[in-house]
Amino acid sequence: MPPALRRLFPILTWGAAYTRASAANDLIAAVIVTIMLIPQSLAYALLAGLPAEVGLYASIAPLLIYALMGSSRTLAVGPVAVASLMTAAAVGKLAAQGTPEYLGAAIALAFLSGLMLLAMGALRLGFIANFLSHPVISGFISASGLLIAASQLPHLLGIKAGGQTLPELLGSLLRGLGGVNLPTLVIGAAAVGFLLWSRRGLAPLLRARGWQARPAGMVVRAAPVAAVALTTLAAWGLGLEARGVALVGEVPGGLPVPSLPPLDLGLWAQIAVPALLISIVGYVETISVAQTLAAKRRQRIDPDQELLALGGANLGSALSGGFPVTGGFARSVVNFDAGAETPAAGAFTAVGMALAVLFLTPLLHYLPKATLAATIVVAVLSLVDLGALRRTWVLSRTDFAAMLATMLVTLVVGVEAGISAGVILSLGLHLFRTSRPHVAVVGQVPGTEHFRNVLRHAVVTVPEVLTIRVDESLYFANARFLEDTVYDRVAADPGLRHVVLMCPAVNDVDASAFESLEAINSRLRDAGVTLHLSEVKGPVMDKLRRGHFLQELSGKVYMTQHDAMRALAPEVTARVRAAGRSE
Amino acid sequence: MPPALRRLFPILTWGAAYTRASAANDLIAAVIVTIMLIPQSLAYALLAGLPAEVGLYASIAPLLIYALMGSSRTLAVGPVAVASLMTAAAVGKLAAQGTPEYLGAAIALAFLSGLMLLAMGALRLGFIANFLSHPVISGFISASGLLIAASQLPHLLGIKAGGQTLPELLGSLLRGLGGVNLPTLVIGAAAVGFLLWSRRGLAPLLRARGWQARPAGMVVRAAPVAAVALTTLAAWGLGLEARGVALVGEVPGGLPVPSLPPLDLGLWAQIAVPALLISIVGYVETISVAQTLAAKRRQRIDPDQELLALGGANLGSALSGGFPVTGGFARSVVNFDAGAETPAAGAFTAVGMALAVLFLTPLLHYLPKATLAATIVVAVLSLVDLGALRRTWVLSRTDFAAMLATMLVTLVVGVEAGISAGVILSLGLHLFRTSRPHVAVVGQVPGTEHFRNVLRHAVVTVPEVLTIRVDESLYFANARFLEDTVYDRVAADPGLRHVVLMCPAVNDVDASAFESLEAINSRLRDAGVTLHLSEVKGPVMDKLRRGHFLQELSGKVYMTQHDAMRALAPEVTARVRAAGRSE
Repeated sequence: MPPALRRLFPILTWGAAYTRASAANDLIAAVIVTIMLIPQSLAYALLAGLPAEVGLYASIAPLLIYALMGSSRTLAVGPVAVASLMTAAAVGKLAAQGTPEYLGAAIALAFLSGLMLLAMGALRLGFIANFLSHPVISGFISASGLLIAASQLPHLLGIKAGGQTLPELLGSLLRGLGGVNLPTLVIGAAAVGFLLWSRRGLAPLLRARGWQARPAGMVVRAAPVAAVALTTLAAWGLGLEARGVALVGEVPGGLPVPSLPPLDLGLWAQIAVPALLISIVGYVETISVAQTLAAKRRQRIDPDQELLALGGANLGSALSGGFPVTGGFARSVVNFDAGAETPAAGAFTAVGMALAVLFLTPLLHYLPKATLAATIVVAVLSLVDLGALRRTWVLSRTDFAAMLATMLVTLVVGVEAGISAGVILSLGLHLFRTSRPHVAVVGQVPGTEHFRNVLRHAVVTVPEVLTIRVDESLYFANARFLEDTVYDRVAADPGLRHVVLMCPAVNDVDASAFESLEAINSRLRDAGVTLHLSEVKGPVMDKLRRGHFLQELSGKVYMTQHDAMRALAPEVTARVRAAGRSE
Repeated sequence: MPPALRRLFPILTWGAAYTRASAANDLIAAVIVTIMLIPQSLAYALLAGLPAEVGLYASIAPLLIYALMGSSRTLAVGPVAVASLMTAAAVGKLAAQGTPEYLGAAIALAFLSGLMLLAMGALRLGFIANFLSHPVISGFISASGLLIAASQLPHLLGIKAGGQTLPELLGSLLRGLGGVNLPTLVIGAAAVGFLLWSRRGLAPLLRARGWQARPAGMVVRAAPVAAVALTTLAAWGLGLEARGVALVGEVPGGLPVPSLPPLDLGLWAQIAVPALLISIVGYVETISVAQTLAAKRRQRIDPDQELLALGGANLGSALSGGFPVTGGFARSVVNFDAGAETPAAGAFTAVGMALAVLFLTPLLHYLPKATLAATIVVAVLSLVDLGALRRTWVLSRTDFAAMLATMLVTLVVGVEAGISAGVILSLGLHLFRTSRPHVAVVGQVPGTEHFRNVLRHAVVTVPEVLTIRVDESLYFANARFLEDTVYDRVAADPGLRHVVLMCPAVNDVDASAFESLEAINSRLRDAGVTLHLSEVKGPVMDKLRRGHFLQELSGKVYMTQHDAMRALAPEVTARVRAAGRSE
C-alpha cells in the first residue's frame, strides 16, 4: 500500500490491527457519546437558527469521514457551540431564519469551510492557525459563550427577542420582558436547575450511595437526555403547546438525502470570510483537544492530516444537508473517558445518530425549545473563563489588551469583527514588542572572558570601543530601531572609534535588517567609526556571506567578543582578563 | 527655557549659536536649492493633477515650519514625486481634475496627513514606520517611478491619455498615439535629452574645461531652470500654443492666503486611509534621508521629533493652499552638498520660493507642460531600481516575493493596494518564518561542557534524556510548533524519561507560549515524562516566575545544559566530559 494513502487514511493503519476487545470498548463509548450527542445536536441546530434535524444530519456523515481520515484516536466531531454561533452570525446577514435560503447558506458555509480546510491541508498551511494567539482565542471563546447564553434567554423565557451583539440581545430582551410565558419559564428554569444539579450534585450523591465512578459518570452524562424526555412528556401530557410553550414541532424522519449545496458564486463570495474564520477557529479548537487527549496516551497527532480530516468532515456535512462541524471538547473527553480506543467509536456513534434520525424523530415533536436552550446555557457556561483575564494580566499587559479587545469587540460588534480585531491586535502587539528589542551595552567582567550588560554588572569598558548586544533576531520591524540606537550612541560620543555588534541572540537576519547593517556600516564609516561583529551564529553568517556586506564591512567578524576586544583594545583586555586572577 | 520646548523646537538650540559664517553658507545653499525647487514644485503639482501655483505654495510654509521643528540640519522638505502620485491616486477617485473639489480634497489630504503625523509624534508611534520592510518600500518606490514615468508620456507626446494603473496608462497611450502633436514631441524629447545630458555629460565637460567641482555641480543643478527658460522662450517666440503645445497658462501671482481646508467629515473618512499611507511612506523616506545625511557629519536625528516636524510642515502646507509634502532625497543631498549648515537654509529657500511666487508667475504662462513632464521623467528614473530585485533574491526568497508582489500590485492595481499588499505580505512572511523556528536536538561534545546539534556534530546523547534547543523567541506564532515538535519526539520514543528545553536563544515568551509550556509540562507528565529547562535568560526567567508555571513544572530549571545533564545522567555526562581529556 502506498505510504501516501496510508497517511491520508489512518484507518488503514489502526484498522489492520483492530481487535474484538477494542471494538467492545469503542461500542460502549459510542453508546454514551450518542446519548450525549442527541440533545446537543438538536440544541446547536437551534442555536444556529436551523431546523432540528440539521443538527442530527451534521452528526452522521462527518463522524464517519473523520473515522476514516482523523489522526486522533478519540476526537469526536460534530456541531459545537461556537461554530454554531458563527454560522448564525454569518448566515443571518444573508437570509431570514426558516427560509430555504437560510438553510442553503448554512450548508454552503460547511461546504466552503470544508474546501478551505482541505486546501490548507494539501498545502500544509496548518501554521495559519498560529495567527490566533492563545489570549485572543480564549477571549473570543469566553465572549462567544456569553453571547450564546444571552441568545438563549428568550427561549428560556418564552419571548420573542433577537440580535447579533450583546447590546442588541439585552435591549431586545428588556423590551420583550413583559411577554414572558410562565409555563416556558418554569420548564426552562427547571431544566437549567436539573442540569446544573446533575453536573455538581448528582455524581457525589451516586458515589455516596455506593456507585462506582464510571457508571455514576455515565448517569451524569445521560442527564440532558432525561431532561429532554421529562420535559417532552410534560409538554405532551399537560398540553403545554396550547399554553404558549414553543415546541420543536414536526421533525422530518429518515436519513438525509445526499445533495450538492447551492452553487451560487455570489453567495460563496459573501460567506468566504466567515467560512475562513469558522475553519480556523474550528481547527484551532480541534487540534488543541486532540493534542490534549493524545498526550495522555502518548499518541501522535498530525496537524496537517487533521486539516484534511476536518475538511472532509465538513464536506460530508454539507453534502448530507448539515452545517459546519468541528472537534468538540466535552464530547471528546466523554469519548476518551468512556474508553474509546480508536476512531471506530466515532463511526459507531454515527450509526447511533442514524438510528435516532430513523426512529426517534416522531418523539421530538413535543420537545420544548426551552429544554434545548437550557442544555446550551449550561454547556456554554464552561466556555466562559473570565479568570483568564486576570491570569493574562499577570503574565503580559499587551496580551491582556489583545484579549480584552477581542472580548469587547466580539460582544459589542460581533463574532467576525471580534476574531479579526484579535488577530490584528496580536500581530500589531508582537511587532511592537519586537520592534524595540532589548539592547545592552556590554563590558568585560574582570578576571573572565565574559561580557555583560554595563547597567547590571561591574564591568570594564574601553572609551574608544562601544559593544552593543542585541537580544533579538533582526528583521524589518526592528531594523530601524537598531539604526537609531547605534547612531544615537555614536553621535553622543565623539571619542568613539569602533562599534562591535555582539550577536549571540540574533537567530535570523532578513533583507531589511541586512540593508540596515549596510547602512550602519557605511554611515559609521562616513563618521570615521569602524563596525565589527562578534559571536554571529552559523545560519546568520551563511546569510551575510551571500551579499557584499562582508566585503564592505569596515571592520571584522570575530568568533567571540573576547577575540574582538583582544584585537581592538589588546592591553586593556589582557589587564582586565588577568585582574580577577590576582584578586 | 523648559527642555520640552527646546526639544519641540530644535531651532532654540542651534539658533542660539548661529553665526554669520553659517548664515553665509546657508544662504548659498538656499539659492541653489531654490533654483532646483522652482521647476520641481511646478512639475510635481502637474503630476498630482493640481494647478502649478499649488506646487509653489507647498514649498514655502512647510519649509519655514520644518526649519523651526526639524531635528535634521540639512533635510529639505516639499512636494516629492511619490507623494504627488499618491495624492493624484487618492483625490482622483473623489473628484475630476481642475475642479475646486479636487483641489479641496488635495488640501484636506495634506491637513489630515499633518494631523496624523502630529498624533503619531505625540504618541511616539514612530515604530509604525517599521511595518514597511525595506524590500516593500524599495519595490513600491520602483513601481511608483515606473507609474509616474508612464503618466508623463502623454504630456511629452501632446496626447490626451490617463489612468491610475500601468495597463490603463499604456492602453490609453496606445489608443491616443494617432494624435501625437509634433511640436510637443520635439520640445519634450529635446528637454529629456538636454536634462539627461546635463546629468551625465555636462559636469565632465565643465571639469575638462578647468571648472572646479562645486561651481560645475551648481551649473548642472541649474539645468532644469535652463530647460524651463529655453522652452518658455521658444513657446512664446514661435507661437507654439497655436500649434497645439499645451502650456501652463495663467498662474495667479501673490502669496497664498491662509485658509482652512474643507471641514467635511465625509470627505475626511474617504481620504483617511490614503492620508495614513502617504504619512507613513513620506515619513519613512524622510527618516532615511535625514539619517544618511546626519551620519556624514555625526549628527543626531530624533525620529519622533521628525514626525512632529513633518506633521507641522503638512499642516502648514494645507493652511496655505498646498498639498502633501515630505523630505526629498535629491534636494536634501543638493542642500547638503551646497554647504547648508542649519535648517535656516530651508527658511532662506522658503523666502526664495516666496519671491518666485511674487515675481516669476507671469513668466510661467508660456512654459510648455512637456518641459515639466521631462523634468519629472528624468527625476523619477533614479527611483526605479530593478536591480534590487536580483539583490533581494540572493538574500532572501521570501523578501523577494514580498518585493515583487508589492511592485506588481502597485503597477496593476494601484499605489494604495500595492503598499497595503506589501505590508500584509511582509507580516505574513515574517510570521511564517518565525512560526517554524530552527529547533535542534543537542548532545554533549566529548571532552567539553558544550552541547551541539546532533546532526552537525559528533556528540553523545543519553537515550532516556532528550534535549531540544529552540533558536527563536517563543510567541503565539510558533507556540504550537513547539508543542507539535515535542509531542512528536516523545511519541516516537517510548524509552524517554526526561525532556530538557535549552533556551539560550529564547529572548521573550508571550502568554501563548507560556500556555504552551504549561500544556507541554502537563501533557508530558501525563505521558510519564519530566520537563526541564536550561540556560533560561534573565528577562524570560522573570516572566516565568510571574505565573504558576515554575511551581507546576515537573522537573527543574538548570543554569546550564551541563548542570542539567549532570543531574539527569550523571555517570554518562562525567564520562563524556572526561573523554576528551584522555584523548
